[in-house]
Amino acid sequence: MEQRSPSVDDFPDGFPASTRVFRTDGEIQVPFRHIALSAGEPAVEVYDTSGPRGVAGSQGLPKLRQPWIDRRAARSDTNVTQMHYARGGEITEEMRFVALREGVTPEFVRGEVACGRAILPANHKHPEAEPMIIGRHFLVKVNANIGNSAVSSTIDQEVEKLRWAVRWGADTVMDLSTGRQIHETREAVLRNSPVPVGTVPIYQALEKVKGKIEDLDIEVFLETLAEQAEQGVDYFTIHAGVLLRYVPLTAKRITGIVSRGGSIMALWCLAHHQENFLYTHFERICELMKKYDIAFSLGDGLRPGSTADANDAAQFAELETLGELTQVAWRHHVQVMIEGPGHVPMHKIRENMDRQLTICHEAPFYTLGPLVTDIAPGYDHITSAIGAAMIGWYGTAMLCYVTPKEHLGLPNRDDVKSGVIAYKIAAHAADLAKGHPGAAARDDALSRARFAFRWEDQFNLALDPDTARAFHDESLPAPAAKGAHFCSMCGPQFCSMRITQDLRDQVAEGLRTKAAEFRASGQELYPPVE
Amino acid sequence: MEQRSPSVDDFPDGFPASTRVFRTDGEIQVPFRHIALSAGEPAVEVYDTSGPRGVAGSQGLPKLRQPWIDRRAARSDTNVTQMHYARGGEITEEMRFVALREGVTPEFVRGEVACGRAILPANHKHPEAEPMIIGRHFLVKVNANIGNSAVSSTIDQEVEKLRWAVRWGADTVMDLSTGRQIHETREAVLRNSPVPVGTVPIYQALEKVKGKIEDLDIEVFLETLAEQAEQGVDYFTIHAGVLLRYVPLTAKRITGIVSRGGSIMALWCLAHHQENFLYTHFERICELMKKYDIAFSLGDGLRPGSTADANDAAQFAELETLGELTQVAWRHHVQVMIEGPGHVPMHKIRENMDRQLTICHEAPFYTLGPLVTDIAPGYDHITSAIGAAMIGWYGTAMLCYVTPKEHLGLPNRDDVKSGVIAYKIAAHAADLAKGHPGAAARDDALSRARFAFRWEDQFNLALDPDTARAFHDESLPAPAAKGAHFCSMCGPQFCSMRITQDLRDQVAEGLRTKAAEFRASGQELYPPVE
Repeated sequence: MEQRSPSVDDFPDGFPASTRVFRTDGEIQVPFRHIALSAGEPAVEVYDTSGPRGVAGSQGLPKLRQPWIDRRAARSDTNVTQMHYARGGEITEEMRFVALREGVTPEFVRGEVACGRAILPANHKHPEAEPMIIGRHFLVKVNANIGNSAVSSTIDQEVEKLRWAVRWGADTVMDLSTGRQIHETREAVLRNSPVPVGTVPIYQALEKVKGKIEDLDIEVFLETLAEQAEQGVDYFTIHAGVLLRYVPLTAKRITGIVSRGGSIMALWCLAHHQENFLYTHFERICELMKKYDIAFSLGDGLRPGSTADANDAAQFAELETLGELTQVAWRHHVQVMIEGPGHVPMHKIRENMDRQLTICHEAPFYTLGPLVTDIAPGYDHITSAIGAAMIGWYGTAMLCYVTPKEHLGLPNRDDVKSGVIAYKIAAHAADLAKGHPGAAARDDALSRARFAFRWEDQFNLALDPDTARAFHDESLPAPAAKGAHFCSMCGPQFCSMRITQDLRDQVAEGLRTKAAEFRASGQELYPPVE
Repeated sequence: MEQRSPSVDDFPDGFPASTRVFRTDGEIQVPFRHIALSAGEPAVEVYDTSGPRGVAGSQGLPKLRQPWIDRRAARSDTNVTQMHYARGGEITEEMRFVALREGVTPEFVRGEVACGRAILPANHKHPEAEPMIIGRHFLVKVNANIGNSAVSSTIDQEVEKLRWAVRWGADTVMDLSTGRQIHETREAVLRNSPVPVGTVPIYQALEKVKGKIEDLDIEVFLETLAEQAEQGVDYFTIHAGVLLRYVPLTAKRITGIVSRGGSIMALWCLAHHQENFLYTHFERICELMKKYDIAFSLGDGLRPGSTADANDAAQFAELETLGELTQVAWRHHVQVMIEGPGHVPMHKIRENMDRQLTICHEAPFYTLGPLVTDIAPGYDHITSAIGAAMIGWYGTAMLCYVTPKEHLGLPNRDDVKSGVIAYKIAAHAADLAKGHPGAAARDDALSRARFAFRWEDQFNLALDPDTARAFHDESLPAPAAKGAHFCSMCGPQFCSMRITQDLRDQVAEGLRTKAAEFRASGQELYPPVE
């Protein structure tokens, strides 16, 4: 593994012992965050989503993938999807990048993309993105939603939210803007995003028809897709599974339809008493998406909005249709993931995963939480991290974060951080539970630092070093306390870790003494029977 | 159900629509928090741990249980445990209280206590406590740890932490003080605690021998127990399962022994090369405890302190001994619960529960988390709430909270609140997943309020109304927004809930139209075959 000499200010704030380094196969360069440790301990390198440094928002990130895209364009390919290449046996630069990033072979990546078990979202109009993969045989990923609404926020704020989200580890972002300047906001986000960007195009399509749902049609939708495709959006949430006949199945729910896109399409179906045009014209959408390599995120428009509504007939009926559409998209070699709930009590989570795998032919699952109870608005990053960790363990490939503001308001900077960190916890816990190779290395390094009272190493290995350090400072602010063999919880006399270290010395000493006694006694392990 | 007329200032801050009410069987009065709702919705009543109001710390709470205790004392009972009475077929006032509190029959409570599947911790020297029960067929409970250490906090601060913890829903508290004024702190906590109080007596015993672990013995330990028993401690954590032969099993762990009590006893065993005196003199301890009705919380001194050490030989060896001691205690009719880990990755949690139930003969399990990853110091209320929810669902009866300061420092007021709320979420999620009768009522009421845009009802039903309201105010501070049929997340045009309500009107209208057409056409449901 070759490493570029890192500059010391690579992670100027918050990650003081970290530098950005690269792993390479000789050509492709994949960034990692290198965490230096003390006391001769080997450094720990972690997956890094934060992207290139020191670029002004107006300038945009360097176009990492442009040479790869240009080389393929020179061949006049008309289907440019990673799935198309994978099925043709071609290992792309994006697959090699992902292989280095995940620590697997390029051929393994190709195989997973070819069979649809993983997606590599990579619109060739978004060359700034560092390739990443979403599939259950890879690290569990986290998406962060950003975007303004009619009542809040500016373009600069959204770019700042994007940077903040990837700094804490978001693997993709979705720009869910519905307000003014929807095109300009998306452009600024895309040009500054080192991670794939998803959108829900129906929001902008609805703006185009001035909010009149019944005026939506496939033409205005395709026009919207074309506009966003040209900008570089990497995946589209499309609610093509909300069929007319499913709408009455939601009538007796406590919370009806809570997906915005789902409710729009349901109302359209009823207004026209016609089938969802996203469903009836699905192949036209595929035709467009394969020219750019945009992945489907097939939206769960009928997902439950309360634990009471989980796993009901409406939800599972839609899932069947998403499974059918998955196969249509795959015929076009268009990549697909499937969106999932939402609000689900713990005992009903597993069924969601099992059904999705069967019905959707192992296409990656991408869930929003799920929240495991409805009684804690203000803390839904926690209610949902519980469900997210579990469903990640069961096989969900990407977790859409939920912030503390869920159900209450738009997330600000602090909320984005809280949401991403809660979801990095859930995703990592899932990786551990799945026995993902190497996932335990960071836990073990941190635990060794903890046991050896290497406080600074413990902070530096944490998901959020500043917060860990600040909490320690609150009780023991003296710099010397960072070398102390105890902490404020127990004080020096009651420190179990210090006592255990004394104990280890005694056990080792005891074994030596016993061994010496044994040897001195002239005994044998199995004395002859008398 | 009779209700005392509540005073309006019962919940003066934070719970504006709540009043303290009582359910009664004619004699016993059990408090609940009554949450009034708008729009003709029925009120929701929730379990309330917050205790009597308006009592100065110096005065102490009223002695609710004194008449019951006196009546039994008049009979000259020498074994006063709830288990003893239950096994004798007697339904105590405490059992009746618990039955009203949990919505089950007194006979069911008696049966669960008699067989040891549940405990009702109730030292007769702590008459201020409102009876509660810990068992997997009841609501999952939450313990909050408080207590000073050598480097921090005062008696008044600890009483304030106690009140704060029960205000947010802690079902028991443990006073883990190790610093100065250990007796006085405990006295102040007990006299002001409406919930059972637990301690780890070895800490004070160690103070009595000036911190010299090798000077500990059963006499100083029993003397400590007697002192704390007289004060009214309801359950004792006792690390009687740390046997000499188990200590070397921890030698290759990453984090050795992380239980303070466990490390003390391990060092004692090695220092004397003798068996743990808590184990060898266990029946003397039982003799003392049955005179007061103090429950054992058999400590897991060898619990894992990192995910790497989970489910290892040391941990499970100790569990076998705890199972053996459970039966010894039960012979004395002393109530028992079993402490559990700690740090356990998700895929190893279930084994902890299954083994504990088998080995410990269904005695209630009381776990600390478990944390499902080690990489997030500063957020361990979240890493552990994930494990706590899961193990609660699997059957753990009480969850010991973890605050954001875990591993870093002593929790302050904010940390106590964060910890209790994260654990109320975990416990309630477990109740839902177990299908506990009535558990979903609060979720459903809140979801109905959410769908109907009854914002104030949504806040008032939340675990933390102030925070929910404050988050909503951040985006839409105008009082009128609390009646708005949208929020800042989507704005008015994209509100899925508003659209769904339009939709419902259309579906209803559509059904009426179709029905009219059907009737007008003169068709029959099953027309005669032609």
